[in-house]
Amino acid sequence: MAKKDKIVGIDFGATFVKLALISLDGIILKKDSFKTGDFASRDSLIAEMVRRARCLVDKKDDVLGIGIGVPGQVDYKKGVIFNLTNVKGWRGVNLREILKKKMGLPVYLDNDGNAVALGEMEWGAAKGYRNIVAVTLGSGVGGGLILNGEIYRGGNYAAGEIGHICIDRRRPICNCGSNGCLEAFVGNKAIAREAVRRLNKHKGSILLRLAEGKTSKITPKLISQAASKKDNLSIAIWQDIGRTIGIGLSSIINILNPDIIVIGGGISKTGSLLFKAIKASVKGHALEVSVKRLKIVRARFVEDAGVVGAAALVVKEKGCNS
Amino acid sequence: MAKKDKIVGIDFGATFVKLALISLDGIILKKDSFKTGDFASRDSLIAEMVRRARCLVDKKDDVLGIGIGVPGQVDYKKGVIFNLTNVKGWRGVNLREILKKKMGLPVYLDNDGNAVALGEMEWGAAKGYRNIVAVTLGSGVGGGLILNGEIYRGGNYAAGEIGHICIDRRRPICNCGSNGCLEAFVGNKAIAREAVRRLNKHKGSILLRLAEGKTSKITPKLISQAASKKDNLSIAIWQDIGRTIGIGLSSIINILNPDIIVIGGGISKTGSLLFKAIKASVKGHALEVSVKRLKIVRARFVEDAGVVGAAALVVKEKGCNS
Repeated sequence: MAKKDKIVGIDFGATFVKLALISLDGIILKKDSFKTGDFASRDSLIAEMVRRARCLVDKKDDVLGIGIGVPGQVDYKKGVIFNLTNVKGWRGVNLREILKKKMGLPVYLDNDGNAVALGEMEWGAAKGYRNIVAVTLGSGVGGGLILNGEIYRGGNYAAGEIGHICIDRRRPICNCGSNGCLEAFVGNKAIAREAVRRLNKHKGSILLRLAEGKTSKITPKLISQAASKKDNLSIAIWQDIGRTIGIGLSSIINILNPDIIVIGGGISKTGSLLFKAIKASVKGHALEVSVKRLKIVRARFVEDAGVVGAAALVVKEKGCNS
Repeated sequence: MAKKDKIVGIDFGATFVKLALISLDGIILKKDSFKTGDFASRDSLIAEMVRRARCLVDKKDDVLGIGIGVPGQVDYKKGVIFNLTNVKGWRGVNLREILKKKMGLPVYLDNDGNAVALGEMEWGAAKGYRNIVAVTLGSGVGGGLILNGEIYRGGNYAAGEIGHICIDRRRPICNCGSNGCLEAFVGNKAIAREAVRRLNKHKGSILLRLAEGKTSKITPKLISQAASKKDNLSIAIWQDIGRTIGIGLSSIINILNPDIIVIGGGISKTGSLLFKAIKASVKGHALEVSVKRLKIVRARFVEDAGVVGAAALVVKEKGCNS
């Protein structure tokens, strides 16, 4: 019998579809990606997904299964997508059955936030913990919850919307229609906007120079670069963003009393400047009893979090990593 | 063999200790209570608890067990109290073992918020649901979580602190040391304070008359009475309080996607005026996908929630009501 020691992980994102061949230890052996928007129809996108997945696999017999994380609400048991947040035309699609038929392999489908949380539990920074909050800081603020050692999905498969914790009942308006959501303060665009707003009072900041004089080119990545060069404005921004993230996390901590919070996504790469501010804020805002033993750590997986998490779905269901 | 069809439920509150003999259907057969503060030492309080519990029981053989809910963090498995929020001198006490020895019956101990949630699931408004948020609105704002059909306690037995969700990062200071906590807006005292503040601009309100001209006598109960008599000020207060509660609940809804939220405690008796405002606020603030099938209902148990919940701990552990 073949050893079945590889997994295909697919991260179906609104911008890119990423694919990887991954070992049972969570090591990426090969990877690939393509733009989601390049395919007009659902069928042509699926065909490309399958074509690329087949290219990754040398021998099908070696593959334990395919895991796929999608950006939206899914019935993971049936493999049906209810709806995708930023990709049109996927309501009610049983992507699991379609891929299973085309690939001839077991397929496991889940929400991408859930997959990321599981990846960190299986192979990453949350290994060995049972109550895990995984947070992804990027364009949006996403998340996944592992409670009592299992993915927690909620009554309607919609749990873990960490970006939509309200931290200010007054303002600002959020994309979701509510106001004062965490994401409206610390999503990529909000951070860049805040930097531009403060530039007027900080003419000496190197940030504008790094952005070649164009405020439109200011991104969190650039603000991190400037901060690493000791730019006061940029350092202050990350301290304030960290403080704000900490306020949102404190609500989760007081509700869920997790063992560990794993923070990933592009913004997590800002590193200790941001993490120090988050931790100080949590200490000031969350209940002492829940903070005492809490760990707040950087995710192990950032760019690859989606594919690794998708692969973890297979390991979890197959029970082969325990 | 005796039928063992009764349970003793004990609600160990910071103000009162309530006890009841309860049937396996959650019906209160007899009850009793005494003031917690009347007993200077822990031992004398326990002795009184035991004496009153014995008085409730006609035949010990009929009793399945004793359930007790306590206002603080407990290791429910061991029966040890880590600490009580508003009662001094209970750190590290194994109340379960003490009661077991003195009563000669099985004893189950848990946090009171957890017990209340369980009571509503076993016999109350949340019967048949698997993902339940129980909220108690009173002096403080407490809660309990049932996730995937089980009490969710968190890594450190401190989950469910719903009152300490931050809804306004700026103000006001909360007893917990943080700021903008839900409890700081909608706890009993905060509601009364808000009414007093608004009275200046609403000289025609009957509220002050109901309070015999003394602002110190204004309570949520009185504001409810005034509202039921169509007092505009009091109606507006409940609408605003409902809106604020809805903002806090929306964060929980977006994180946990529960099937049902059960709201109890004295303030819940305000009724439909409050509940309409809560529901409208939740609809405006929480994600549509999580609100669509969500139920928000009044708790079945209010004054008796603690003793009934404590009794449910026994039923749950003994598995005799399924």
